[in-house]
Amino acid sequence: MKDYKSESPQTPWRHKIHEVIFEADTPSGKWFDIILIICIILSVLAVMLDSVQAIRLDYGEALIYAEWVFTILFTIEYILRLVSVIRPLSYAGSFFGIVDLLAILPSYISLFYPGGQYLVVIRLLRILRIFRVLKLVQYVGESRLLLQALKASRRKITIFIFTVMTIVTILGSLMYLIEGEENGFTSIPKSIYWAIVTLTTVGYGDITPQTILGQFVSVIIMLLGYGIIAVPTGIVTVEMTQAFKSVRAKGIRACRGCGADNQDEDAVYCKYCGEKL
Amino acid sequence: MKDYKSESPQTPWRHKIHEVIFEADTPSGKWFDIILIICIILSVLAVMLDSVQAIRLDYGEALIYAEWVFTILFTIEYILRLVSVIRPLSYAGSFFGIVDLLAILPSYISLFYPGGQYLVVIRLLRILRIFRVLKLVQYVGESRLLLQALKASRRKITIFIFTVMTIVTILGSLMYLIEGEENGFTSIPKSIYWAIVTLTTVGYGDITPQTILGQFVSVIIMLLGYGIIAVPTGIVTVEMTQAFKSVRAKGIRACRGCGADNQDEDAVYCKYCGEKL
Amino acid sequence: MKDYKSESPQTPWRHKIHEVIFEADTPSGKWFDIILIICIILSVLAVMLDSVQAIRLDYGEALIYAEWVFTILFTIEYILRLVSVIRPLSYAGSFFGIVDLLAILPSYISLFYPGGQYLVVIRLLRILRIFRVLKLVQYVGESRLLLQALKASRRKITIFIFTVMTIVTILGSLMYLIEGEENGFTSIPKSIYWAIVTLTTVGYGDITPQTILGQFVSVIIMLLGYGIIAVPTGIVTVEMTQAFKSVRAKGIRACRGCGADNQDEDAVYCKYCGEKL
Amino acid sequence: MKDYKSESPQTPWRHKIHEVIFEADTPSGKWFDIILIICIILSVLAVMLDSVQAIRLDYGEALIYAEWVFTILFTIEYILRLVSVIRPLSYAGSFFGIVDLLAILPSYISLFYPGGQYLVVIRLLRILRIFRVLKLVQYVGESRLLLQALKASRRKITIFIFTVMTIVTILGSLMYLIEGEENGFTSIPKSIYWAIVTLTTVGYGDITPQTILGQFVSVIIMLLGYGIIAVPTGIVTVEMTQAFKSVRAKGIRACRGCGADNQDEDAVYCKYCGEKL
Repeated sequence: MKDYKSESPQTPWRHKIHEVIFEADTPSGKWFDIILIICIILSVLAVMLDSVQAIRLDYGEALIYAEWVFTILFTIEYILRLVSVIRPLSYAGSFFGIVDLLAILPSYISLFYPGGQYLVVIRLLRILRIFRVLKLVQYVGESRLLLQALKASRRKITIFIFTVMTIVTILGSLMYLIEGEENGFTSIPKSIYWAIVTLTTVGYGDITPQTILGQFVSVIIMLLGYGIIAVPTGIVTVEMTQAFKSVRAKGIRACRGCGADNQDEDAVYCKYCGEKL
Repeated sequence: MKDYKSESPQTPWRHKIHEVIFEADTPSGKWFDIILIICIILSVLAVMLDSVQAIRLDYGEALIYAEWVFTILFTIEYILRLVSVIRPLSYAGSFFGIVDLLAILPSYISLFYPGGQYLVVIRLLRILRIFRVLKLVQYVGESRLLLQALKASRRKITIFIFTVMTIVTILGSLMYLIEGEENGFTSIPKSIYWAIVTLTTVGYGDITPQTILGQFVSVIIMLLGYGIIAVPTGIVTVEMTQAFKSVRAKGIRACRGCGADNQDEDAVYCKYCGEKL
Repeated sequence: MKDYKSESPQTPWRHKIHEVIFEADTPSGKWFDIILIICIILSVLAVMLDSVQAIRLDYGEALIYAEWVFTILFTIEYILRLVSVIRPLSYAGSFFGIVDLLAILPSYISLFYPGGQYLVVIRLLRILRIFRVLKLVQYVGESRLLLQALKASRRKITIFIFTVMTIVTILGSLMYLIEGEENGFTSIPKSIYWAIVTLTTVGYGDITPQTILGQFVSVIIMLLGYGIIAVPTGIVTVEMTQAFKSVRAKGIRACRGCGADNQDEDAVYCKYCGEKL
Repeated sequence: MKDYKSESPQTPWRHKIHEVIFEADTPSGKWFDIILIICIILSVLAVMLDSVQAIRLDYGEALIYAEWVFTILFTIEYILRLVSVIRPLSYAGSFFGIVDLLAILPSYISLFYPGGQYLVVIRLLRILRIFRVLKLVQYVGESRLLLQALKASRRKITIFIFTVMTIVTILGSLMYLIEGEENGFTSIPKSIYWAIVTLTTVGYGDITPQTILGQFVSVIIMLLGYGIIAVPTGIVTVEMTQAFKSVRAKGIRACRGCGADNQDEDAVYCKYCGEKL
């Protein structure tokens, strides 16, 4: 989610464009961002409505027209972004650079492959810029906290998912043997799909066990799924507690001797240089 | 949930009404509140029963009659409340003032738009007064704790919901492309509805993926939903721990001998230096 | 779950019976308990199997016979328990006394009201005695911890359930108005049932919203249910942390001055009498 | 998950085989493990694809051929493992020894009982060796942490599951009485299956309550299931916090000056008295 920020380029008109498009502190930059967000929402809404048959029949042409207007606007904006920064490749490779490109590509793809235009909902990702406009520094801080907690639990969650996938594959295959094709478990991949539907407690009911043995195995999968949801929850809670604690503990007092600012609240001496705090 | 409490007005009869309606400490005020709560429950029950066809055919007229009796009683009560307080507008704009009005409006609306009377179940909100009657100060304290924890997690939960909505919109649109209208995914809004049904692990099964690719994407949504429920749970747990700690920390005494301020509530002597507190 | 323990009565044969039936430390008492548990499990299994039509047709008579043998045995046991304790009424009113009675009543009721015999599965509650037999003192300790945590969260969970019920009633009634009887929402109670099915993320799919507005409200209920599950989880986690902490902290060091044994781990002086620890 | 590690046997060729098969540090050992994992994945994929009718019709013979090639390879590997270790019985009885045997048995069983070959997905368990190859010591550490937390909660979770099973049996039997065979609750075991489907919030919808009383009991089961999921989550979170704390506490240094032993891992000086550590 790191936003791309280049130093201002030299040419005056490029400098002006850069200020409007990339900065959110100046009045013109702020207005640009607000209009941009409204355009993004409108364009996503247009695509959504276009997919509803009743609306397409009545307003289909207008929606396609609107869709292309937005696409051309976003294309111009993308080119201006590329032109106004000093290192265009660096912007193009950044998170928002890729999102900006993905936001206009589907429309052009739909010229060759009809249907592709619905992928423009990826434009929604551009709205993440909203946090910059609203200057919600706190929100950025909070989401950094959440990300930090998730990052710290990365390895534990990988092990958890790996274990779950193994369980689900073995139990899914077992159910294929028990229930068989006549009860909707037509193949092992489908049985694994059913096992995941059951373990995650989604339970569509499109495939359900019919035999007594199958229902017994299902019950085990359900209880397993009901119980092991405690594991990721526990992991995230513990890591979140850690992340919050370290945030609250940091920057409280800096040492005059060595400048280290991650002193504990109850420390009397700096733990790096021994200087009295 | 802050209850409106005005100073008693000057006129004696307004003072008497105020005492009965607004106060819960006097015997008459207590009885008024208990009768009020019984009326609310009976009136909500009457509306519920009226919606059951078998009962409506037999007792329909009696229920409509009862319904209007309650509405008129509540209207009189609302007028008395307005009359007896010093600042009627202040009451009318308070939480309970609005709830009291919403509790009688649907009946009058149903005169013009039949069916509206079922909205009177909003009267149920009036029952929140029950906490006042039962003098369950602890309950108010506890619910304040819960609200405090939820308020502290407000920003984090906003980010979480925003992220979930973005994921659901993009994956829902993808499923519309993959499954198409012939498999029940008739429009992007409907696909998003399906994606939310799946992510929240509700899983009605009214729309289910039929293609292999669609089932694969569903599995990802399910695992995502199964995993990220850890995030709000983690947030609320951490904030609740904080809220409870701060409640326990409040009003705590510092030792005159050593200054340690983490004395237990029941301590008589400082546990670090033995000084009497 | 407190087990009833009387002092041994005076008469020798009553003393002997008491020893066998109530105590679990003596060899005869232990054997009695083990046989009792096997009888309970067999009798519950018999009732379960009796309800399966295919089995009832073949072995119905044998199962009814077995069922009555167990009932008579349990009746004799219940009478012996009453006879052998000093205060029979005290036993009859205790948790296990009531369970023991409920475990034999359904069979006798089924003489007058056929079908009642399936209620004997309540005998399963008697199995809670298993913890006593296996001398799993730790299990009793652990379950006391769990109960303590649940008790401490009692008030908070009451508020939570009260709030959920209010939300569900109002949103359920709203759905009755939106969807109407033609879409399966035939009455307000049924709509509330549907709202609970949705909020708890069970999602049977027997009733599903058909209108766009109805699907929109459903989505709100789902997200609500997906989010607020964090509240009871947070409450129980916090209270459990407290309960465990207090257990670990207790009995660590007792004060020589006043004997108070809930001294903190880091205390140097007793916080009740100021005596050095 | 303890991997079997024997001392190298004496004979040179057995020593060489042991090095290749059992060790992951030598280049040849590493390559062996990587090829092994690829073979496992390919063989599991072959079985899965074989279960899809459309693929079986076209490539059935090739898949059976591939399946047997893998089985023979794994059989040779199993024999080599037995031969190259000093104590073959000790290996055969270890976790991986049993898994290795279970991974080849189904194919041979399928010669006598067709269908058994699908059980070879149990080979997936062999992939757990992947952690050894990738030298992900941290992963092993993390998973040990998770296991430790789960082990510590063992007793509490046993009580929880025992309680849930008792509730589900009693409420399931009650529903059998209320709904009866005409509404899909054809026997007590099936009613218990339904109660578990409901309590775990899976909610297939293959059996749903039709009577008002039945829907009322269902609502209680749902709210129960929605609420008590907090219990395992709370248990695991608390134990995980403990497990993580104890890991962080291990190997910590005490100050020679004041004896305080809660020094941070990165501290150079004691934070209480300034003494060099």
